[in-house]
Amino acid sequence: MKTLNVELGERSYPILIGVGLMQDVELLKEHIPGQQILIVCNETIAPLHAQPLLDALSDRRVELLNLPDGEKFKNLETLNLIFTKLLELGFDRSCTLVALGGGVVGDVCGYAAASYQRGVNFVQVPTTLLAQVDSSVGGKTGINHQMGKNMIGAFYQPQSVLVDIATLGTLPDRELRAGIGEVIKYGFGLDLDFLEWLEQNMQALLDRDHQALTYAVEQSCAIKARVVAADERESGQRALLNLGHTYGHAIETHTGYSSWLHGEAVGAGMVMAADLAMAEGMIDKATADRCRNMVERCGLPTAPPKDMDSERFLALMARDKKTLQNNLRLVLMTGPGKSVCTSKFSHKNLTQLIDNY
Amino acid sequence: MKTLNVELGERSYPILIGVGLMQDVELLKEHIPGQQILIVCNETIAPLHAQPLLDALSDRRVELLNLPDGEKFKNLETLNLIFTKLLELGFDRSCTLVALGGGVVGDVCGYAAASYQRGVNFVQVPTTLLAQVDSSVGGKTGINHQMGKNMIGAFYQPQSVLVDIATLGTLPDRELRAGIGEVIKYGFGLDLDFLEWLEQNMQALLDRDHQALTYAVEQSCAIKARVVAADERESGQRALLNLGHTYGHAIETHTGYSSWLHGEAVGAGMVMAADLAMAEGMIDKATADRCRNMVERCGLPTAPPKDMDSERFLALMARDKKTLQNNLRLVLMTGPGKSVCTSKFSHKNLTQLIDNY
Repeated sequence: MKTLNVELGERSYPILIGVGLMQDVELLKEHIPGQQILIVCNETIAPLHAQPLLDALSDRRVELLNLPDGEKFKNLETLNLIFTKLLELGFDRSCTLVALGGGVVGDVCGYAAASYQRGVNFVQVPTTLLAQVDSSVGGKTGINHQMGKNMIGAFYQPQSVLVDIATLGTLPDRELRAGIGEVIKYGFGLDLDFLEWLEQNMQALLDRDHQALTYAVEQSCAIKARVVAADERESGQRALLNLGHTYGHAIETHTGYSSWLHGEAVGAGMVMAADLAMAEGMIDKATADRCRNMVERCGLPTAPPKDMDSERFLALMARDKKTLQNNLRLVLMTGPGKSVCTSKFSHKNLTQLIDNY
Repeated sequence: MKTLNVELGERSYPILIGVGLMQDVELLKEHIPGQQILIVCNETIAPLHAQPLLDALSDRRVELLNLPDGEKFKNLETLNLIFTKLLELGFDRSCTLVALGGGVVGDVCGYAAASYQRGVNFVQVPTTLLAQVDSSVGGKTGINHQMGKNMIGAFYQPQSVLVDIATLGTLPDRELRAGIGEVIKYGFGLDLDFLEWLEQNMQALLDRDHQALTYAVEQSCAIKARVVAADERESGQRALLNLGHTYGHAIETHTGYSSWLHGEAVGAGMVMAADLAMAEGMIDKATADRCRNMVERCGLPTAPPKDMDSERFLALMARDKKTLQNNLRLVLMTGPGKSVCTSKFSHKNLTQLIDNY
């Protein structure tokens, strides 16, 4: 088992990564605090992974709540299901919420933990690759608004993140690929060594090789932990973790958070970021092709939906949280493993590029 | 004009208190940051006080949103009105929310500011006595759940609090009295000198004497700023600011947040706290009478609603945020100007006392 620390002063916490970690009763007891525990999950994940947690915590008061499954349910109504359950149970401000599932469960549950009685304990137990490498680390919690993704939420750090690589064994293939999309982001945007490792080990990841998956999760979490420690509230460097996301969020909002997975939208978004960076002369064609090839090998889409014209795209992108004073800012590659967040690009290039897909 | 500072490190902020401060264009410009400003108000307050703010900020992009008026609208639906408005306006994370109004507007608007894009600028311009002396200071924001008051929210500090005593000129008499209820709390629970001043100057407050009101607001804010600086997230001393509130919140929840004003419920709650403290032998009858007399002189209720039996009362009180591991904790007087937060009291005394009202 590997332990990484996210260094945030009094809000520091460990990320524990290992194969079979959810069978380790003592470890679960140690890293999940509180006498009143609500495990927040969904109907897909609970039958697969809830029992070990329920058993390990049976000496406390532990309850399970299943949310409806899917990004389109990441909204105020679902959030309120958690509040109502906590009040029905009579749980107080010493209670703990455990998010067991993917990014949607983690984001909604984390925001509920930030908000219930103005803040209670929170533990992340991510069971999808996407959640393990990205959404469970760094304290971004929240819900969507019908007018924009992740527009409502809180920066709220968990007490711990418990990553059991074995849970990826039950992950549908499509979700595994979407998760690898987020992994590519770290390599292409921030770390050339990791990018090269990914190019060499893509097949092992797709084959769910435990050793390869463990390494990819560790490296992704280590990169993210380093960036978050330097910039918790995204005033600078943290924005680089958003490579491909401004385009991706626009696609997700356009399609009603239902037909595209988040990692799929990010995959297409990375290709768009590479193409724009090439049009801007920031990277050469070989580097842009390298990005497209990785996304393709991963089986992710390399272009936005056909029914999105540039006008619609730009309107949705303008709502991105990085936008300041109507100035759209994008993360663009400056080379393999390097990127910047900038508003200095030609809007004509961006418009043409979208219309060309 | 008087300036008090709430000392919270990088989250420190000033409380400015003065008569006619909303006519001071330069002061408003200086203390309300941002180029995109949404003033959140309600239909009762906006016609009285919004214009000076709109005029003073006319060199920025400034918009007004009116919420429905009343504690019963302090809920998720009203919160979402703010998010929708912000997204319709295309406001980004550099925007500022200004709460112009009473405690409900301040609490909902503050929670929206804490949550929109995971946190934007926030300024409080309280126009009721209750908001000026209590809810606008200290960073408690939030909404009610139908199962309990203030159960959902955030600790989120404003950039500044701007208190114009002149706005109290338009306050309905009933709300003025309810506000004095919160002022009494500071005197009786925490500060004997202020308690004695209040006993001598109650009539001047009820007559809306500007000098008396200014002094009462200054003293209340100074006491609250001191307590909050020592205990921002209510792990200890801050609970003393809740004198009368556990009973009061139970009354408000029971009556559906509609027929009793918050300060009225706190008034009755303080009398109940005094009566229980007397039954517990913590204060003598003279001190309990002193509390009841002040609440009475203020024209506030001195007993809970007739239709609340002890069973209902205790069930609602158990949901209080100070409750830990099913242990109800109450703030009880230990003398005039002194109080403790304790779970050491006889539940039989409490039950009898409620049934006797």
